Amino acid sequence: MDGPGEDASSSVTKNKDACSPLTKGKKKEVKEEEESGLLGLSYKKDENFGEWYSEVVVNGEMIEYYDISGCYILQPWAMSIWEVMQTFFDAEIKKMKIKNCYFPLFESSSGVRQKAKDLNKFAPEEVAWVTKSGDSDLEMPIAIRPTSETVMYPYFSKWIRGHRDLPLRLNQWCNVVRWEFSNPTPFIRKGILPLQPSRRPIERRLYEEFLAVPVIKGEKSEHEKFAGGVYTTTVEAFVPNTGLGVMIMVHGDDKGLVMPPKVASVQVIVIPVPDKDANNQGIFDACAATVKSLEEAGIRAEADYRDNYSPEWKYSHWELKGVPLRIKIGPKDLANNQVRAVQRDNSAQIDDIPMADLTERVKEMLNNIQQNLFDVAKQKRDACIHVVHTWEEFVEALGQKKMILAPWCDEEEVEKDVKARTKGGDMGAAKSLCTPFEQPELPEGTKCFASGKPAKKWTYWGRSY
Amino acid sequence: MDGPGEDASSSVTKNKDACSPLTKGKKKEVKEEEESGLLGLSYKKDENFGEWYSEVVVNGEMIEYYDISGCYILQPWAMSIWEVMQTFFDAEIKKMKIKNCYFPLFESSSGVRQKAKDLNKFAPEEVAWVTKSGDSDLEMPIAIRPTSETVMYPYFSKWIRGHRDLPLRLNQWCNVVRWEFSNPTPFIRKGILPLQPSRRPIERRLYEEFLAVPVIKGEKSEHEKFAGGVYTTTVEAFVPNTGLGVMIMVHGDDKGLVMPPKVASVQVIVIPVPDKDANNQGIFDACAATVKSLEEAGIRAEADYRDNYSPEWKYSHWELKGVPLRIKIGPKDLANNQVRAVQRDNSAQIDDIPMADLTERVKEMLNNIQQNLFDVAKQKRDACIHVVHTWEEFVEALGQKKMILAPWCDEEEVEKDVKARTKGGDMGAAKSLCTPFEQPELPEGTKCFASGKPAKKWTYWGRSY
Repeated sequence: MDGPGEDASSSVTKNKDACSPLTKGKKKEVKEEEESGLLGLSYKKDENFGEWYSEVVVNGEMIEYYDISGCYILQPWAMSIWEVMQTFFDAEIKKMKIKNCYFPLFESSSGVRQKAKDLNKFAPEEVAWVTKSGDSDLEMPIAIRPTSETVMYPYFSKWIRGHRDLPLRLNQWCNVVRWEFSNPTPFIRKGILPLQPSRRPIERRLYEEFLAVPVIKGEKSEHEKFAGGVYTTTVEAFVPNTGLGVMIMVHGDDKGLVMPPKVASVQVIVIPVPDKDANNQGIFDACAATVKSLEEAGIRAEADYRDNYSPEWKYSHWELKGVPLRIKIGPKDLANNQVRAVQRDNSAQIDDIPMADLTERVKEMLNNIQQNLFDVAKQKRDACIHVVHTWEEFVEALGQKKMILAPWCDEEEVEKDVKARTKGGDMGAAKSLCTPFEQPELPEGTKCFASGKPAKKWTYWGRSY
Repeated sequence: MDGPGEDASSSVTKNKDACSPLTKGKKKEVKEEEESGLLGLSYKKDENFGEWYSEVVVNGEMIEYYDISGCYILQPWAMSIWEVMQTFFDAEIKKMKIKNCYFPLFESSSGVRQKAKDLNKFAPEEVAWVTKSGDSDLEMPIAIRPTSETVMYPYFSKWIRGHRDLPLRLNQWCNVVRWEFSNPTPFIRKGILPLQPSRRPIERRLYEEFLAVPVIKGEKSEHEKFAGGVYTTTVEAFVPNTGLGVMIMVHGDDKGLVMPPKVASVQVIVIPVPDKDANNQGIFDACAATVKSLEEAGIRAEADYRDNYSPEWKYSHWELKGVPLRIKIGPKDLANNQVRAVQRDNSAQIDDIPMADLTERVKEMLNNIQQNLFDVAKQKRDACIHVVHTWEEFVEALGQKKMILAPWCDEEEVEKDVKARTKGGDMGAAKSLCTPFEQPELPEGTKCFASGKPAKKWTYWGRSY
């Protein structure tokens, strides 16, 4: 059975930024022989976000849906981003003398049931149970870990026998499994385990420097904090916390994915634009020389020499896949010893880059793209923040799906009450997201938006996903 | 429930190389306050290989047994070796333009049952089945992948639509799960997926250059070749093919693990040897300076400053963990501005290394240790190879658990017949291991050891595990 992405692009719509007529909307339907077709998306980000997302991750070759509903294959295009991030994260934690370990995938039933209660991080019905090997029943069902902490904590207490064993600095890279009930499909999250607050600055850098996604640094409320922690700092991107997903959602557009250069496995795609009367071998050679120069300068570059696709098809293809910079070389460029470049993020075209300045200019453009993506995302994010002072303003902003900054009395009972009063309907109840470390001024006498008591801090609120 | 390692060291035996009396054999029983105890192994490698192995991996802090029988935790000491190897392997395959992907952990039931038949790589009863989420039965049971190929092949045929999509070069790092029946415990193998023969030279380098384990390059027989492959080249270490396990088995001794320097997360351990009348702060400072110099030279070094363990305890501890080189600094060394070093592999001690020559000398010693480990392992391996010409010689050598090199007619029926005739008893039937690329001379008229027909090649044979 196919996943949701399979139905996403059966109709054909016009890609407004393309310069030739569209024939097919879906990559897998493009025949090898077909030369003139471009690749468009059927859905627009602003009009149907969910379908747009499904389409862009499939057609951009990030994932392939799988014959078990809800499972998917991470294709090389997605894996390479994950690898860039993991390499950075892993090097940073090693600097901090944190060591990697690996705990089993399985957990005993008693452990899981107890921890589900204690941690409140997953529901018992989300846990997948192995009950058979072959045709034989197991003596006791065994759970597939729904989270990593439940497996680890008993061993930590075994390993920490005294103060000399502290600090225990461990990291684990792993998958966890949760059966999703609202949409009955298994969902595998490739996650980073929050073993200690010290990882937070690294995580912030991953979001801001690599994925170009602005985050707010702050502290979780008593009610929302990580079970077992004395305090929980947080890095909030205010979209579902999947790493890669947030990047797609924030930067992607109606032409497809938009990769921040720092994580793109191909930063520059070089496309030859041959012509029937031109020195096409010369053009191909110039493309190869361009790739070579860029690679030698540490830039991840590739050329697309395929002879069964037109240059226009290739533009759309690499736009869909989100490559930050596209370089074109045609007869005129060859004659002038220069290249043309187009930025993926804003479609800006630079027409006359001398080969002599190539690597300098490309580096500069990639840096600019990385920064622009962040700046634009930050502007959009800031425009979504609504400051409210009263319950009425709060409810209205919540209905508009805004992120809300409100003065709060910081009482757990009040947060529970806010949850209770906003429950029901399609959307989740409101909850506190975080109290930002950078606090706006809170004038004497400011009241809590929910309780009317004296406010102690500004806190962000939103819907639970 | 504890695993087999838990019972391995309840008795106390003497560590023949230690220089002080032994008190406890097991690390987890050593109290923090205890200062004089050393760490010995209860079992000897030559006398009880299985128990020795269990003890060495647990007491050497490679793994910790887990509350699900047969599952274990990979501790940082083991993970770091895995990471060194993975980093090398990953960089090498990237040079070959092989890209990483990630397929789901789950597989549909129809797929598994069919592939179990086709591939003949795992038995249906080894497959773990998820049948429930929470308390609800799944509509269809879902398998946890027992191997990766079964999941991948259908998608390969989907992605390869024509010759331009070839070669498809993919790699996947993943766990697979098999329920073990002979010893009813789940066994999780952290494996490298053999997607194409081109990875073989890298794998050989991993074994020989990193793990210092000699391998024989050759070709699998028709009967033993990888299902679906036209031919299967092989790299045989002639021990269970687990990567890390083979290294432990080949190099480990009665004092514990022996790490080849290239994969050791700590290559040099520096141990202060204070004395009550000495300038102990000076000794500690010299240790710190030694670590700093080594680290700056790219050597992975650490000092053990713990004040609740004696130097002798630390020697045993780091010997047990297999650190290739131990450096001691005492009052006399401090006075002479030198250090003493002891090699883990052969206990050779070098008493007067001037600080000025430190990094040069240490690099040289680490290189020698790496080479020595390989040479010694190769000698031992070669001594185990038995050349036979007749069925009687074959059966005798098999009974002695030798690795056998025999002239063979290269007929599949004959191999099946050899299997059938050697079945029964505790040990597995005999099977061909590989036909080495480097063939000894095969004189005209040499006959097959099994069929008496004219021999076509020399082939290695052994028991199946």
